[in-house]
Amino acid sequence: MAFSERVARLKSSLIREILAAAQCPEVMSFAGGLPAEPMLPRVEWADMPTSMGQYGTSEGEPELREAIAEEARALGVPCDASQVLIVSGSQQTLDLASKLFIDPGTEVLLEAPTYLAALQAFQLFGADCIAVPQEADGPQIDALRERLQNHKPAFAYLIPTFQNPSAVRYSEAKRDAVAALLDEFGVTLIEDEPYRELVFDDGSATPIVSRLKQASWIYTGTVSKTLLPGLRVGYLIATPDLYPYLLRLKQSADLHTNRIGQWQALQWLGTRHYREHLAELRDFYRVRRDAMQDVLVEHFSDLADWQIPQGGLFFWLTLKQPLDTRTLLAPALAQNVAFMPGEPFFIDPDANPGHLRLNFSHVAPERLSEGLKRLAEVIRQAQAS
Amino acid sequence: MAFSERVARLKSSLIREILAAAQCPEVMSFAGGLPAEPMLPRVEWADMPTSMGQYGTSEGEPELREAIAEEARALGVPCDASQVLIVSGSQQTLDLASKLFIDPGTEVLLEAPTYLAALQAFQLFGADCIAVPQEADGPQIDALRERLQNHKPAFAYLIPTFQNPSAVRYSEAKRDAVAALLDEFGVTLIEDEPYRELVFDDGSATPIVSRLKQASWIYTGTVSKTLLPGLRVGYLIATPDLYPYLLRLKQSADLHTNRIGQWQALQWLGTRHYREHLAELRDFYRVRRDAMQDVLVEHFSDLADWQIPQGGLFFWLTLKQPLDTRTLLAPALAQNVAFMPGEPFFIDPDANPGHLRLNFSHVAPERLSEGLKRLAEVIRQAQAS
Repeated sequence: MAFSERVARLKSSLIREILAAAQCPEVMSFAGGLPAEPMLPRVEWADMPTSMGQYGTSEGEPELREAIAEEARALGVPCDASQVLIVSGSQQTLDLASKLFIDPGTEVLLEAPTYLAALQAFQLFGADCIAVPQEADGPQIDALRERLQNHKPAFAYLIPTFQNPSAVRYSEAKRDAVAALLDEFGVTLIEDEPYRELVFDDGSATPIVSRLKQASWIYTGTVSKTLLPGLRVGYLIATPDLYPYLLRLKQSADLHTNRIGQWQALQWLGTRHYREHLAELRDFYRVRRDAMQDVLVEHFSDLADWQIPQGGLFFWLTLKQPLDTRTLLAPALAQNVAFMPGEPFFIDPDANPGHLRLNFSHVAPERLSEGLKRLAEVIRQAQAS
Repeated sequence: MAFSERVARLKSSLIREILAAAQCPEVMSFAGGLPAEPMLPRVEWADMPTSMGQYGTSEGEPELREAIAEEARALGVPCDASQVLIVSGSQQTLDLASKLFIDPGTEVLLEAPTYLAALQAFQLFGADCIAVPQEADGPQIDALRERLQNHKPAFAYLIPTFQNPSAVRYSEAKRDAVAALLDEFGVTLIEDEPYRELVFDDGSATPIVSRLKQASWIYTGTVSKTLLPGLRVGYLIATPDLYPYLLRLKQSADLHTNRIGQWQALQWLGTRHYREHLAELRDFYRVRRDAMQDVLVEHFSDLADWQIPQGGLFFWLTLKQPLDTRTLLAPALAQNVAFMPGEPFFIDPDANPGHLRLNFSHVAPERLSEGLKRLAEVIRQAQAS
């Protein structure tokens, strides 16, 4: 069988396999990024017009595009509805952007660590990925400047607000510095913000795209983390030089996004009941985060360092005594515990051992302590041997 | 801006622009392939579990995969549920297959004419498209053999049952002959069957994939033509050598298909009310086809030749006096009539003038005669000048 050259770069996804193993109800899974089942809102369908069953436009539903543009403008993103493209979840934005920009050997600039599924999508299309180390308040600015001086990335892909996996939120200063550098070197920004609304403190941070003066940009968001991921409704907002291409690529990929999910999303965006739901969601996740923090202090203080995440769904642990955390997976699953090893979130996994990504939204509180105790024990045994 | 090399092959879609123009309610559109609004079934959502809002598996809902495999086996397709991948409409299958097989310069074999959006998807990835002329009962078998002897296509993409645009249904003999040739030359078949259920006579024709003895295959279908296109739910069934790659490509493209649409599709597939709905749909479309045939005889007998379609949604007209039908679009739209020029359905549009694709499902009967009369007049005027 003669496959395309890109198939050789099609990696078996570790996440897939972990999630499959984590399906068993007895497994305590800290692996995924799933919203908590009890917080999935009940949705009503009775008022949906039959016409939503008909084919729609590739751009997406006009009212939904308006609502999204309005929310984005409130964040400071300069846009109107004509720049909004509804997609089948944020992952599709990564696919469309890859098609738009990446040939084999095209350079792209990423954070280290970065979102695993983005890395895989870019690499599938043959990207030559360049990493900028992530610090507690955002990327190392000197390293970013050096990379931009010595490379010609087609775009920078950044997750400045509660990054998956590191939970880092860029400071105001670093947002400004990144924007200035991208403008200076004329590099397109893809700013991915799935976790913006899952925030547990009063800190705010306007998007980097709103600080750009010249560079082109794609801003991408989703309702998956705040409403229902099963709808598969996300969106991108792009500068007018990029939008027409992304639209045609969307059409070629799947014609248009499902309209029933779009209709449902429209019933929520910008409404009072959505704001109330978001407030409940933040309270719920804050409680889970705090519970996880307490248990981590109990079982991991001697094993790892971490920051308390101010948003998002994950703790990012750095082992004091690094080892390849992928080797912990099998013994952890044998103890009915799933987690996400840190290595795959780096362009060069083998050079970056010793991190674990732990989701705090999924495991029920009554099993939290037992799960993390078992995981700590697995690490201790591995380090001892 | 440095885009990928493939963007240079990203064509502005004629269909998009026509459909956009055809949105105006005063336009009588024979252009699209939209199901008739009155035949969109009312669907119920009240019983959908909240859990359908959660993330799902990339493969799709297990029960839906089972139901689709069962329907396919009833058609003679040898498969089980593990070979079924739920996708966001058949267009996504074309995108995934393109990713799996096509590098710039990869040969693929198509019918002439073929489905426009397939041609565009394959060309976007750089395919070198090879055409086999279509006859009233399927492809020219001698030409197919010659192409297979002189080329090494990665796959053959065929639409054997009520092809869009030509409405051709392959004869039993040609189905057998095509299967034998693909086996002989070891060429993978992608068999696209969106229109199988929209059949207006008693003729049956089992899929070509069920006749293959050795060649790999992908069989693709959708609920868009029979239930609701706005759900964006389709499926592919693939041989086990292809399936794992297609699954990972699906995951990379958009994680998974929306679950609410999948749940709704499952409420219909294989049920008595779905069979009743399909029977009503066939009756409705048969009446519209017959009405169109009567009006075509009245206005087009001196202008064009055509076969009466035994299924699907289209008449395919061949002008007795060929001209580039793309030049008819502007004057037709000026008369509030939209249609689909035939040229873009060919690999070499300029070498294939003189066809029109006319949809018979969309225009209301009371406007049918007026619309076709105006279109005939536009053609007459173009031919006179």
